[in-house]
Amino acid sequence: MTDALSIARDLIRCPSVTPVDAGALGVLEKALAAAGFTCHRVTFSEEGTADVDNLYARIGTDGPHITFAGHTDVVPPGDESAWSVGAFSGEVKDGFLHGRGAVDMKGGIACSVAAVLEHLAANDGKPRADGKGSISFLITGDEEDVSINGTIKLLKWAAERGEKFDHCVLGEPSNVETLGDTIKVGRRGSQSGTLYVDGVQGHVAYPHRAANPVPDISRLIVAISDEPLDHGSAQFQASNLEFTSVDVGNKANNVIPGEARAKFNIRYNDNHTQASLRELVETRLTKACGNRIKARIVWEPSNSNVFVTKPGPFTDLAVSAIEEVTGRKPELSTSGGTSDARFISSYCPVIEFGLVGQTMHQVNERVPVGDLEKLTQVYRGILARYFG
Amino acid sequence: MTDALSIARDLIRCPSVTPVDAGALGVLEKALAAAGFTCHRVTFSEEGTADVDNLYARIGTDGPHITFAGHTDVVPPGDESAWSVGAFSGEVKDGFLHGRGAVDMKGGIACSVAAVLEHLAANDGKPRADGKGSISFLITGDEEDVSINGTIKLLKWAAERGEKFDHCVLGEPSNVETLGDTIKVGRRGSQSGTLYVDGVQGHVAYPHRAANPVPDISRLIVAISDEPLDHGSAQFQASNLEFTSVDVGNKANNVIPGEARAKFNIRYNDNHTQASLRELVETRLTKACGNRIKARIVWEPSNSNVFVTKPGPFTDLAVSAIEEVTGRKPELSTSGGTSDARFISSYCPVIEFGLVGQTMHQVNERVPVGDLEKLTQVYRGILARYFG
Ligand SMILES: [Zn+2]
Ligand SMILES: [Zn+2]
Repeated sequence: MTDALSIARDLIRCPSVTPVDAGALGVLEKALAAAGFTCHRVTFSEEGTADVDNLYARIGTDGPHITFAGHTDVVPPGDESAWSVGAFSGEVKDGFLHGRGAVDMKGGIACSVAAVLEHLAANDGKPRADGKGSISFLITGDEEDVSINGTIKLLKWAAERGEKFDHCVLGEPSNVETLGDTIKVGRRGSQSGTLYVDGVQGHVAYPHRAANPVPDISRLIVAISDEPLDHGSAQFQASNLEFTSVDVGNKANNVIPGEARAKFNIRYNDNHTQASLRELVETRLTKACGNRIKARIVWEPSNSNVFVTKPGPFTDLAVSAIEEVTGRKPELSTSGGTSDARFISSYCPVIEFGLVGQTMHQVNERVPVGDLEKLTQVYRGILARYFG
Repeated sequence: MTDALSIARDLIRCPSVTPVDAGALGVLEKALAAAGFTCHRVTFSEEGTADVDNLYARIGTDGPHITFAGHTDVVPPGDESAWSVGAFSGEVKDGFLHGRGAVDMKGGIACSVAAVLEHLAANDGKPRADGKGSISFLITGDEEDVSINGTIKLLKWAAERGEKFDHCVLGEPSNVETLGDTIKVGRRGSQSGTLYVDGVQGHVAYPHRAANPVPDISRLIVAISDEPLDHGSAQFQASNLEFTSVDVGNKANNVIPGEARAKFNIRYNDNHTQASLRELVETRLTKACGNRIKARIVWEPSNSNVFVTKPGPFTDLAVSAIEEVTGRKPELSTSGGTSDARFISSYCPVIEFGLVGQTMHQVNERVPVGDLEKLTQVYRGILARYFG
């Protein structure tokens, strides 16, 4: 059975809590191989992390090449006794398919596979009527946890094989309340750092012999927090810096400490690159320090750069397909947290469109069966327009 | 032998590191009892601390009553191999009496006992020629550590027995560089507290749903640190508030924390009482918070109130005695850390005058033998003027 509901149910029945595969990739591989896809199972390793399985499957040999990306791993079910049906039972009840991964994102993957199989069946087994074009699947088992042995390595592996992607649809649960309300077209970048301020330790009774870093780091925190990084851009809300901690750890109330430190995180938009952002913050720090305060920032490594797929033919055809099926004109959103789209965006334009995220990561995660059918039709509409 | 050097040497040979007495109080008790003092050994206890011995000795039954206060306990010797003579050997070498406690403050106590014995011997064994007046010693073995079973309890014990003190000389090493340079006539009060700021925890990607307490506590720290508490008083330097720590302890750099806290300590002068000081800081906090920031202060209990013995006949006679012996006019100082004078000041005016503090708490603590002789003469001068 290669309809979306059947595939989704089969996937849910594999308890593939990261990094365990539990047969999930095999469900997809079997269905895709039967339709003529060339399938590669690739296992990646890294010291200190578990090995993780990945699947790359392609049909067709030339462009245009659209790839559907996704992850079969899921977060743990939590308190299984709190579920109304087994977390890995894949039961349909009251019109909903229940189970961990139903919306995030075994359901979304199932819809994309079903849509692709229907599309091929309607085109003599070819992506495009003229025999051109390629469709592929980039499926990982390492998204929900550390994301080290997953999409980031699978993309690199594919590039080294000469694979070129023209466009990508990532089936994460992009919709907020109703199927069709939101396409994610980008994400803000994320950059963390630690601000250190050096003072001179001393006794509180002799403050003139000491230099207290606590009021100084406080001044810097206020100065850096108060000045906006920008006022947003065409696709993005304003960038934002939050100090997430400030710490000294001095337990002696008669001692002026010698150092203070504060941690911060920045979510930044396409007004900045990682490099320009760091420079901006350091310039502001230098100004706030004046000639007096001794401070420095240690930046954390980050692989969450800002990216955006700007409105154009690719987003237009997705919007059109969504409107046709759901009657809704989706918002092109760049809000929310990170996903594997941040890695894919280095290789080709990527949009995220999948199910409704409301129950994701919760007890009783579930999807209306009707949404599985509709999302399958949306993906078919995208394929028809892409290869039309 | 009841000269200052002999008594000091006998005291140093008792390794009376707090809370151990090691015979030190017995050295004093023996000398004082022989001169006609009524002696009381009083042991105080408190759960969680070691029992500590104390000595109260008095001669005379009516006023005026001057008491000499001090402590026979010492801080540990540290690295004994670094001492040029044994830390508890009490050796005289190159004109210096060496040993732990030489200046802080077995030397000072020895001078006061020697001076009192000389004074009594010159007055037919009485404090005053007319047979009136009293001299006493309030000696504790619990000053250098927690100060719980020492002077604070000995004063209460004496008050309950009906003892009334008119004036006190505490023989702590008050001089900074040369014998005669400084009388301590007061100390600033010390008050610690913790400032708490409540925010609303949330995800850094959704700051509008959270309220970050880190910039807010930073604003409060700056506001409270920047405004002076006063500009000093006749006897005191300006009061001072130092934030000694600020802490959140948030390790997740994608989480806006829900609370921040900062510890501070205030050294305050006689422009304030503990109550008025707390009110002043809380008023400033309320103003800095405006209607927006939710903050509160938790005050720590404190037994270090500000006190001062104002210039007058008692300080005048001490200055006169010091000038006569040393040729120096001492400064009436209120700087530096705390001592048992903070407890005595609740019962009677107290001044601190003793040896030179330079080597106190260090390896090779030592006192010039000449200083022991001079300090004895200063105390004799004080007694002569007091009972003259
Ligand atoms: Zn997901
Ligand atoms: Zn002392």
